[in-house]
Amino acid sequence: MDELPGAFGTSASFALRLGQSVFSSASLIFMCLDVEFYSYTAFCYLVTVMGLVIPWSVTLLVLDAYSVFVKCLPLQRRLVSLIIAGDMVLSYLSLAAACSTASVTDILPDVGGYYCPPKLCGRFQLSAAMAFLSWFLSSASCLFNFWLFPSL
Amino acid sequence: MDELPGAFGTSASFALRLGQSVFSSASLIFMCLDVEFYSYTAFCYLVTVMGLVIPWSVTLLVLDAYSVFVKCLPLQRRLVSLIIAGDMVLSYLSLAAACSTASVTDILPDVGGYYCPPKLCGRFQLSAAMAFLSWFLSSASCLFNFWLFPSL
Repeated sequence: MDELPGAFGTSASFALRLGQSVFSSASLIFMCLDVEFYSYTAFCYLVTVMGLVIPWSVTLLVLDAYSVFVKCLPLQRRLVSLIIAGDMVLSYLSLAAACSTASVTDILPDVGGYYCPPKLCGRFQLSAAMAFLSWFLSSASCLFNFWLFPSL
Repeated sequence: MDELPGAFGTSASFALRLGQSVFSSASLIFMCLDVEFYSYTAFCYLVTVMGLVIPWSVTLLVLDAYSVFVKCLPLQRRLVSLIIAGDMVLSYLSLAAACSTASVTDILPDVGGYYCPPKLCGRFQLSAAMAFLSWFLSSASCLFNFWLFPSL
């Protein structure tokens, strides 16, 4: 089997996972740190989803790093299908969380300025933007692995 | 090439496209008919996206119907890749629209009851639910075609 850049166990995949870990952690930090986010369902949802995405991408980052730098792991059909399923579910969830957060942040200043001081709103927007980036990388990983799958 | 249920030109694909057309039209109708939706970006976005999804799924519905009932169309690599790309973009857009609408509808009664009388909110919720169903079918179509693609 020839190696597909971006699929599990390649350096491109390592870079994608690194990006996912960084962006999802940034999104969580912007949303949580010193901010009361409990009042809105969408924000709690973002925090929950990022709490799932971070361990997932860190685990795969470690596996990829091992595969790239230490010893190439064998590509098993079952492992790759598990990765595809996880990536797909998490990428849909993070897109959903990013969109919900973005739309709630967009609507808050309209319906009553006191709900969202500009500085706080800016942080929510940043958090949504980071979640979008994390979604993008995660869906790229999913597509590369899906592309590889039939050749296994 | 053996026929894959759900890929372009099969009766399962015809059923999927029919579902997409019905649900996206229902979503548009629930959102637009006799309602002022212009005030919120998320609702305008849903209407825009559904305005793209409806012609796309109706066109493919017609193609599938022709292929199933009249004469089997040849599966060209270029055509299938075009369908995959379109389905993927539109499924992401409709998931984003559905999530935005759902979260805005969720937050409206909290921040000021007069913004959303219960009957109106119910319609917005229905519209978001229809958009979710349309997203689900559209992403299923995309995955089936993507699965078929490497064998072409």
